[in-house]
Amino acid sequence: MRKIRLTVSYDGTDFSGFQIQPNRRTVQGVLQDALAKLTKAPVHVVGAGRTDAGVHAYGQVVHFETDSRIPVDKWPLALNAVLPPDIVVREAQEVDRAFHARYSATGKTYVYRVDNRRYPDVLARRYAYHVPHALDVERMRAAARHLLGRHDFTSFCSAKTTVKGDRIRHLRRADIVVRGQDIWFCFAADGFLYNMVRILVGTLLEVGQGMRDPEAIPAILAARDRAAAGKTAPPHGLVLWSVSYGDDAHNPVDFASIF
Amino acid sequence: MRKIRLTVSYDGTDFSGFQIQPNRRTVQGVLQDALAKLTKAPVHVVGAGRTDAGVHAYGQVVHFETDSRIPVDKWPLALNAVLPPDIVVREAQEVDRAFHARYSATGKTYVYRVDNRRYPDVLARRYAYHVPHALDVERMRAAARHLLGRHDFTSFCSAKTTVKGDRIRHLRRADIVVRGQDIWFCFAADGFLYNMVRILVGTLLEVGQGMRDPEAIPAILAARDRAAAGKTAPPHGLVLWSVSYGDDAHNPVDFASIF
Repeated sequence: MRKIRLTVSYDGTDFSGFQIQPNRRTVQGVLQDALAKLTKAPVHVVGAGRTDAGVHAYGQVVHFETDSRIPVDKWPLALNAVLPPDIVVREAQEVDRAFHARYSATGKTYVYRVDNRRYPDVLARRYAYHVPHALDVERMRAAARHLLGRHDFTSFCSAKTTVKGDRIRHLRRADIVVRGQDIWFCFAADGFLYNMVRILVGTLLEVGQGMRDPEAIPAILAARDRAAAGKTAPPHGLVLWSVSYGDDAHNPVDFASIF
Repeated sequence: MRKIRLTVSYDGTDFSGFQIQPNRRTVQGVLQDALAKLTKAPVHVVGAGRTDAGVHAYGQVVHFETDSRIPVDKWPLALNAVLPPDIVVREAQEVDRAFHARYSATGKTYVYRVDNRRYPDVLARRYAYHVPHALDVERMRAAARHLLGRHDFTSFCSAKTTVKGDRIRHLRRADIVVRGQDIWFCFAADGFLYNMVRILVGTLLEVGQGMRDPEAIPAILAARDRAAAGKTAPPHGLVLWSVSYGDDAHNPVDFASIF
């Protein structure tokens, strides 16, 4: 058996999330179907992160094992030929048996797009959260600085989480980039809790609108209570940008490719 | 009766073009339905340009007459509340009786987006034409310079045109902007023939791939024959960016808003 690692992008709009579910269109399910078609054998796909319904990916990473002898550089084109247009395989590599898309990951980067126009940009409506209110970017940046570093992020984790273990994560980047009337939030961490990026963005947007003070962030973290933080921003502005495997330095967000 | 001018954006993906047709979903039809709902009277909408099926607009301009007393600054929000999410009214102005969305227009700007990645950018697939081949931008720019100015553009007009009158147009801008792996073609002219921008782009892409020489453009223009030019690029990369009314200087393409 060979082990193959794929870098996969998808438009989350028409998927019920990554994880396979009966009678739902999921990324994992559609990928497995395409791989089975190509290799004429059942294939089990493991993803780095289980993105929610409506969340997009530019650099999701998955792995699978196969007996197929298709050369590794032919996998993207061969898979893209059988995949629907809302999933695109960007890269394939053969990896050794120790590699695991989820357990080997050392970090993830997420990008969240806010459309701050008065009326929504119609061509971005599937990929950006429309917030017509005035947003004070400097206030949001001041708040974001308080989030950086190692913290217990329980306040920024959905109360519906079923994850066991600690909620301590190391947030390495919390950048806010303004381009025209779009505001991009960029978060990198060793890992993220359930809905964490969407709650971070929802809370920062409340700071940007003057509903909360940037200096309130330490107390929100200390509360370890979901009710202390802001609303959960909707899924369609969120993109799983990249997953890193001990090679973070080589995985900067290539903003040129999205602007 | 008052005359209202609207600036309208739409995602052309799910429309059979601008112009109303029986049993088809058209921009004009959906706008007229929304206006009738709002004003409780039939409304006839006149557009600056009849975009084809699949073509998008950021700054289409329309006018209509109404007895409604809704204040002009309330029209965008009121209309957006009844319009589907793939049409967004960006601006409304009251204009005098002499104004006509089509006949008063002095120029139009179109933008065409090419995704030059090896594998398509999945989040841009509805709005960019994916061309995985190497493109020589300097060759395309050299070709574009030959297109500038006043020419008979018959070679760049669909043979299916029903337009009477001359095919002389004044091309004021033919810019090619590279951002990351996207290539944006930007054309401004006093007017455009049927499919003109898509044939210009299709021809420039052939130059960029080395299939044609930039120096061949004058002969293509001189031929006044559709068969002399290149293929028609697909509609989904095209956006009617703006329409000008004697105020071209105030209508530059705000690239910050799209990058």
